[in-house]
Amino acid sequence: MTAEIITIGDELLIGQVINTNQAYIAEQLNTVGIYCDRMTTVGDNENVILDSFTTAFERSDVVCVTGGLGPTHDDITKKVVSKFFKTELVMNNDVLAQIEVLAQRRNIAMIQSNIDQALVPKGCTIIPNSAGTAPGMMFEIGKKYFFVMPGVPYEMKGMMDEWIIPFFEKKNISSVVRHRSLKTTGIGESMLAKEIGNVDDVIGRDGTTTLAFLPNPMGTKLRITVKEKSIDSAQLKLNNAEQILRSKIGKYVYSSDEKDLEDVIGEFLTKHKMTLAVAESCTGGMISNRITNVPGASIYFLRGYVTYSNQAKSEELNVPKELISSHGAVSKEVAEAMAHGARVNAKTDIALSVTGTAGPTGGSPEKPVGLCWIGYSDKDITFAMKFNFGDNRLRFKERASQAALELLRRKLLKSE
Amino acid sequence: MTAEIITIGDELLIGQVINTNQAYIAEQLNTVGIYCDRMTTVGDNENVILDSFTTAFERSDVVCVTGGLGPTHDDITKKVVSKFFKTELVMNNDVLAQIEVLAQRRNIAMIQSNIDQALVPKGCTIIPNSAGTAPGMMFEIGKKYFFVMPGVPYEMKGMMDEWIIPFFEKKNISSVVRHRSLKTTGIGESMLAKEIGNVDDVIGRDGTTTLAFLPNPMGTKLRITVKEKSIDSAQLKLNNAEQILRSKIGKYVYSSDEKDLEDVIGEFLTKHKMTLAVAESCTGGMISNRITNVPGASIYFLRGYVTYSNQAKSEELNVPKELISSHGAVSKEVAEAMAHGARVNAKTDIALSVTGTAGPTGGSPEKPVGLCWIGYSDKDITFAMKFNFGDNRLRFKERASQAALELLRRKLLKSE
Repeated sequence: MTAEIITIGDELLIGQVINTNQAYIAEQLNTVGIYCDRMTTVGDNENVILDSFTTAFERSDVVCVTGGLGPTHDDITKKVVSKFFKTELVMNNDVLAQIEVLAQRRNIAMIQSNIDQALVPKGCTIIPNSAGTAPGMMFEIGKKYFFVMPGVPYEMKGMMDEWIIPFFEKKNISSVVRHRSLKTTGIGESMLAKEIGNVDDVIGRDGTTTLAFLPNPMGTKLRITVKEKSIDSAQLKLNNAEQILRSKIGKYVYSSDEKDLEDVIGEFLTKHKMTLAVAESCTGGMISNRITNVPGASIYFLRGYVTYSNQAKSEELNVPKELISSHGAVSKEVAEAMAHGARVNAKTDIALSVTGTAGPTGGSPEKPVGLCWIGYSDKDITFAMKFNFGDNRLRFKERASQAALELLRRKLLKSE
Repeated sequence: MTAEIITIGDELLIGQVINTNQAYIAEQLNTVGIYCDRMTTVGDNENVILDSFTTAFERSDVVCVTGGLGPTHDDITKKVVSKFFKTELVMNNDVLAQIEVLAQRRNIAMIQSNIDQALVPKGCTIIPNSAGTAPGMMFEIGKKYFFVMPGVPYEMKGMMDEWIIPFFEKKNISSVVRHRSLKTTGIGESMLAKEIGNVDDVIGRDGTTTLAFLPNPMGTKLRITVKEKSIDSAQLKLNNAEQILRSKIGKYVYSSDEKDLEDVIGEFLTKHKMTLAVAESCTGGMISNRITNVPGASIYFLRGYVTYSNQAKSEELNVPKELISSHGAVSKEVAEAMAHGARVNAKTDIALSVTGTAGPTGGSPEKPVGLCWIGYSDKDITFAMKFNFGDNRLRFKERASQAALELLRRKLLKSE
């Protein structure tokens, strides 16, 4: 079955609100084997809404509409839906009773605009709203389904989760869609594609599986999608594709379950009862911040140093002043001394360090903006590696933090 | 002029990625008097893409397309664009040269897929990509404009800001839309609305100005939008509305030019030649990270301490062990001692500190999850204030970092 999602609202068209509803609806429909072909956003304009209803319901089996069901003057969706299905608005006493209960609970007076919310197009099936006053609606025409939901995200989510998805689950649709994402880092998108080679060798040639490359500053996500008759066979196909991908580019993959690098590292350190300290210059606290986003990080993360000045590097991390003056703060030697100093001072098993030039200014011919040294220290070894993360300050910080955590992950894996 | 935005990508249709591009493009086009009528999202499917191009370019003056320009097999936009404009892909040597420069700078080998990115439809105008390898394209047909940009948000934003918006600004379109956002923090949305009172007193009654309340965990943004004949009259109206708002709720406003708190504080510290250190426990480096997002932060930000363990608080910040054992790490006394210790050890004019329970677990009846003490120290005074930021770990960190920076801003303002 194919679906089309129509989101209604001027606030979307002027870019004031980011449309999160359409992604949620699409994702949920996928789980019951309904595939979204198109998403359309239109304003609070009767003719344009009518036109979008007509084309969508012509070409798709399922249409999901959100928005414009509120009590104010610019909410015209219900009127347009009535027109589209050539029917009229009638008072629904069940809905009215529900609104009265909600109003009482919230201590709101029942004014006319609340009562009007109980007006619904004749002939529709009501989808109850567990979180608000505007009822949802379904029209079933032949083998096609037309749903109307409020634009308020949690009200829409309630209707999807409690009514629409169970409705299709009961209909037992013949196929299911499942996704799996392999998150990679430390390799560019083009090189990743080259290492993977012929995509058909990974996903087969029967057209039921697809592979997508989704790059971002932190790395490239490889998303495998399968469309199968059952959840079991979908899982089997995903496992198979993942295995083939891992055989080709496994060393760049840090998670296949949506986890971030800081989560993966946290699990490792917790399991092995190891402790970590971080000394940051150019990343300015981003690495510590990411590590402490993980619940329970206090078990393994003991201390972070943001040594933004040279004096801080010497005083907090015992980096010799002469080392800084002879090699410069952005150097292999200083990165190593920072990692070593952080580990010794914080009395941890491992320490990471980062020193570089995040820009946009401050570079020199020998040490351009973007240059970055990442250091690592444990009781057996202390070393540093050189990188260049470009001249955009925020992306530099993201890339540097990602590379530092990836360096740690690979070192931990080797030690296991 | 009317516009239509077409975003291409299977990842959008399955709901894996939330579409932020269309909101950004719509908002930017608004500033040059171009109003978006529709937004459409389609998958990586040639016929559907072609169909969306045809209907959009028929009914709108401007079409903006993003997505599907990458180097991998699922990126088919360029091919479809060529087909739509009945032309062919040709090698563009200028683009190739730019890609080579970028590859060299990033130390990436020039493989075939990188070279192929320099293939562009014959007859298009190239929109340079300052942040990546895929070029943007413009087709000008009569008085209509068709733009193609990459789906990577920061590459698309670069093209909008540096090329497309200036292009239309030069064309001098007949009406202009201007927005101004007053960013507030430290007050809830409802209370803010109450203090502002009748909105018409702020924006007038002629329908050319609107005021929107946009709440987020960092505070509430008040957005004023005016539609005027000239930039000058738009600015005048914005100034007037801002002045009225400031007279009502000025003390909560930290910026009216899209700056963040860390930018505002950075300007203040730079101007007054003051230095800052930060000692963080529960925020885990987020405050240092935010401060160092600002270019030039190294002038005033000298040192950050992420003292996640009690031992770290004692060793790095000289917080007496007895103070921690008698009052607990999350206490007024420890917050004050942390701020004082950070200022003395880092030898700065000012220091901030944060200690709290970010959750999701670890609370007690007396000290529930969400409790947070924020400390401040300068040569004249050391104090701490109590907050509660709720039980969502990431939102706790955001709110706590925002409250700490706002506390600093207000203290700095008073001292001026």
